[in-house]
Amino acid sequence: MAAVSLYFSRMKSLQVSLGNRSYPIHIGSGVLDDSSLFQKAITGKQVLVVSNDTVEPLYGASLLKTLSPFCQVDILVLPDGEQYKQLETINQIYDHLLRNKYHRTATLVALGGGVIGDMCGFAAATYQRGVNFIQIPTTLLAQVDSSVGGKTGVNHPLGKNMIGAFYQPKAVMIDTRVLLTLPEREFSAGLAEVIKYGLIHDADFFSWLEKNISFLVSRDEVAVTYAIEKSCRIKSEIVSADEREEGIRAHLNFGHTFGHAIETHLGYGDWLHGEAVASGMMIATQVSALKGWLTGAEVEKVRNLLIQANLPIAPPEKMKNADFFEKMQLDKKVLTGNIRYILLKNIGSAVIADGVEREIVEKAISSCRSCVS
Amino acid sequence: MAAVSLYFSRMKSLQVSLGNRSYPIHIGSGVLDDSSLFQKAITGKQVLVVSNDTVEPLYGASLLKTLSPFCQVDILVLPDGEQYKQLETINQIYDHLLRNKYHRTATLVALGGGVIGDMCGFAAATYQRGVNFIQIPTTLLAQVDSSVGGKTGVNHPLGKNMIGAFYQPKAVMIDTRVLLTLPEREFSAGLAEVIKYGLIHDADFFSWLEKNISFLVSRDEVAVTYAIEKSCRIKSEIVSADEREEGIRAHLNFGHTFGHAIETHLGYGDWLHGEAVASGMMIATQVSALKGWLTGAEVEKVRNLLIQANLPIAPPEKMKNADFFEKMQLDKKVLTGNIRYILLKNIGSAVIADGVEREIVEKAISSCRSCVS
Repeated sequence: MAAVSLYFSRMKSLQVSLGNRSYPIHIGSGVLDDSSLFQKAITGKQVLVVSNDTVEPLYGASLLKTLSPFCQVDILVLPDGEQYKQLETINQIYDHLLRNKYHRTATLVALGGGVIGDMCGFAAATYQRGVNFIQIPTTLLAQVDSSVGGKTGVNHPLGKNMIGAFYQPKAVMIDTRVLLTLPEREFSAGLAEVIKYGLIHDADFFSWLEKNISFLVSRDEVAVTYAIEKSCRIKSEIVSADEREEGIRAHLNFGHTFGHAIETHLGYGDWLHGEAVASGMMIATQVSALKGWLTGAEVEKVRNLLIQANLPIAPPEKMKNADFFEKMQLDKKVLTGNIRYILLKNIGSAVIADGVEREIVEKAISSCRSCVS
Repeated sequence: MAAVSLYFSRMKSLQVSLGNRSYPIHIGSGVLDDSSLFQKAITGKQVLVVSNDTVEPLYGASLLKTLSPFCQVDILVLPDGEQYKQLETINQIYDHLLRNKYHRTATLVALGGGVIGDMCGFAAATYQRGVNFIQIPTTLLAQVDSSVGGKTGVNHPLGKNMIGAFYQPKAVMIDTRVLLTLPEREFSAGLAEVIKYGLIHDADFFSWLEKNISFLVSRDEVAVTYAIEKSCRIKSEIVSADEREEGIRAHLNFGHTFGHAIETHLGYGDWLHGEAVASGMMIATQVSALKGWLTGAEVEKVRNLLIQANLPIAPPEKMKNADFFEKMQLDKKVLTGNIRYILLKNIGSAVIADGVEREIVEKAISSCRSCVS
């Protein structure tokens, strides 16, 4: 019994407030083993776990053990990688659901990183016009970002995340234990989004990150749990205020307009999403400085934190300035032809900026090129 | 000015009440030419009209004339037919939108029957996680049924409407003039859904239909407009009370569980949807009689009205009783293996019935086989 109470005392639960679509986020070591948490979130008797061939061998069996006492559970294993985040893979999920006669009372469970979460969520949003859905994010990036907020979807050859839906899960289950098997590069990619929350929304959290970055990089459990909790709290506050990105939610795209351009230009699966976002945040930070909003010292703080998190601060060598503008024209954030940038007014405070001159942006990209990490 | 006021006096507007997703239905002769109505419903500057190669030659040019004064409008023409209501066609819409750099402030306009409305609506629901959307239904069936209520989606080889989303349009524009070019078989198919509303929800309307069926069949404008308005009013009342089909909305599926089985068994595009529904309603009526809820005289009334509307009352000859059960197992209305039937307690009042014995249903199907129209 001592172990049980120790375990429960370490678990945190937050709530994403969205009226009758509100849902909890459970964070802690061992969440994956907690049958009662899952039982509350599962509707119906049929459960399909969707995972990939990297994560399933590590955690598939233990999840099935948690679920099988109270439902009929099956697992679909997809190939791992952003290049599979496409409509054809969604069709594989539909096929599996229909062949196995899944009803609309079924529950889909995403066990994997952002790609699995986005695809499983989109399949859940569109199978029989919407079935129940649970997120179990297994990368740091998915835990602090993509699993919270209901964005689901797939890429299209002409642009990232161009096909999708807003569809909220019934619960998000974050087991911090799974981070122990995460490759270093992926862990750092997740830190990019953590740093983003400090930059756009919370100067104190940014200072905390500066002080604790070495603990985070070495995956100290207490530091990592705090960073995840804080990140989820900021994200859920923003999503609760603006579910469909008609206002403040756009701040979450800080670094992403440039980042998506990098990913689209390189082709999915070369740079990790978090790496592209880190480089994008560095460009957006430079643009903010050129607008006169940040000091040189503040730019230096951002640069240093990204470097300590082992993230790229310069854009890809083979990507020209013109490539950024061509790809950004296709970004979802582009409104009637005008590229909208998310910039920083201060560290801890973002702003949506329309009509930023192309020259300033070019200058910012060029100055990032000369950054050496 | 006399003509204008005459026109306006003939236009009816209803409201589907769904909180901040409420929208108007405009019904009348000449709605397609009314720029100001469209201007209110269109957001952004980019408009893509999605139509098919039957409807576009008839009404495409006049719609473009209505829209082009105030937006940049383009038209995508798809092949006509239920067999094209599939994910691959949705992908064609995505391709067109992305190649032509449509932003998420764009508006999609469905100009066609239920197939075009369902596909264009699904594309609107999922392009960039949701763009603005207007329905211009051009068949009677789409006008009284599929254009209202926000059900969108496509078929899958293993089942009808298995992929989709609930996504409400910004407005529904019903121009009664377009019915003049509608083939007779399609017009009758639309009457099946009109008759359904009387059967499930409004005994007085059913009596009105019995008295006026010959005017409807001859497409008398006043009778047709009244029938459309009444049908839309009943449907929007039901949808407003239960958008996501968790309760009373299921009544709208009267005849559809059997009807979908017919369509799936024959392959899409053989029997029209309304024809399959008519045959399905006849079976469900017989089941209701066998349950002791309807008298023989009432069954006879239903049968006579369907015959006068030129609708089939017997199931397809080549479809065995067992085929119905096999196909119905896959229907979305099937909850955890149990087929749920929508039956009639009276003419004008439907009920959801679980656990109806297979023998009764088989008997009802067989008795419909011996119906001769």
